[in-house]
Amino acid sequence: MKKIYGIGVGPGDSEYITLKGYRIIKNADIVFLPSNKGKSIAGEIAKDFIKDKKTVYIEFPMGKDNSKRYREAANIIDKHLEDKGEGVFLTLGDPMVYSTFSYIMKELEKIGINVESIPGISSFNAAANRIRIPLTLKGQKFYLTDGDIDEDILKHSDTVCILKTSKNKEKILDMLERYGFAYTYIKRCGFLNERIMNKADDILKDDDYMSLILGRRKND
Amino acid sequence: MKKIYGIGVGPGDSEYITLKGYRIIKNADIVFLPSNKGKSIAGEIAKDFIKDKKTVYIEFPMGKDNSKRYREAANIIDKHLEDKGEGVFLTLGDPMVYSTFSYIMKELEKIGINVESIPGISSFNAAANRIRIPLTLKGQKFYLTDGDIDEDILKHSDTVCILKTSKNKEKILDMLERYGFAYTYIKRCGFLNERIMNKADDILKDDDYMSLILGRRKND
Repeated sequence: MKKIYGIGVGPGDSEYITLKGYRIIKNADIVFLPSNKGKSIAGEIAKDFIKDKKTVYIEFPMGKDNSKRYREAANIIDKHLEDKGEGVFLTLGDPMVYSTFSYIMKELEKIGINVESIPGISSFNAAANRIRIPLTLKGQKFYLTDGDIDEDILKHSDTVCILKTSKNKEKILDMLERYGFAYTYIKRCGFLNERIMNKADDILKDDDYMSLILGRRKND
Repeated sequence: MKKIYGIGVGPGDSEYITLKGYRIIKNADIVFLPSNKGKSIAGEIAKDFIKDKKTVYIEFPMGKDNSKRYREAANIIDKHLEDKGEGVFLTLGDPMVYSTFSYIMKELEKIGINVESIPGISSFNAAANRIRIPLTLKGQKFYLTDGDIDEDILKHSDTVCILKTSKNKEKILDMLERYGFAYTYIKRCGFLNERIMNKADDILKDDDYMSLILGRRKND
């Protein structure tokens, strides 16, 4: 049976790759990389570990409906794997958190390819450690979204993380302030061009796909 | 200035340690380990990497109020570090997710010890990858708690993770079923004695501190 390891390479720093991910990448014959216009962020993070490997870039145009691409991606992977062959598919962050791999995995399984998924450091874990603000202390709750936040949520959460905040930052910051949350905007966490901002003015001026807002209830 | 690296060793499998965590552990002179009755789970996970190191166990009796212990722990660490010395403090999972280190870190900073925190794989990431169920797909929301879940939350979440479920499992499973969530109980994820259960009867019979329930909204 053919096999694919989905491997989370973490959000930016290549040293956030786990020992397990590293070992499996080093042993792999072929590396599949999700890309946009020929550029793969996961591939760049892992570049030192895959430079002597056969690589196959699979395009997922950003902002487009890629629902048909997942089946095609599975077929591309199938075509490149030899009988009983194994390959790795690298993915930014963790394979189960807003990842293309979560979709491709289902298509791979449908066509009889064995899948194993290796966790990676999520951007919100990296960001919380970077600024040393707990996501959760005992008895606390954490909420993760890539879109809006609701008042009900803020009532029931101690920390919230909002990913991909390019469109609705003003609304989000207003709501966090209204419910007594302090916030930090972190962009490209773990990359060389990482930036951390706390002032609403600075945050509103910025626009980056690879950014997140961590909101934390004050007074703890 | 003295310095402590808080390092998340992940939830069980020693290979879930990151390359960064591994490198810093290997370079450390002294390793601090949270323990209960002399036993440190984080220390056991990393045992192959710390066997030639000086280790200091710091007791945190389970189920007790340890709020005064954090200051004491910081003082113990301070006492053992040489001038400008560096050490590591190992912690299960991620240092910012329900971790003793989040508390100790504040006390270390208060007494002038420099702190850097290195993310680790959280149990819920490991569990989701293990059973290949996404925590979040595009537009979806994830909620993490170590206690109760509320109806408001289930309305606004696609996946929920409930940690430390020993007391209120029946109520949690009832509520998940009522709101159309499928669930999986995962105990000691990544350990040799890992177990995965889907039937309410089995789940209710089990009792383990290191367990979690992942609930995922059906029909996606």
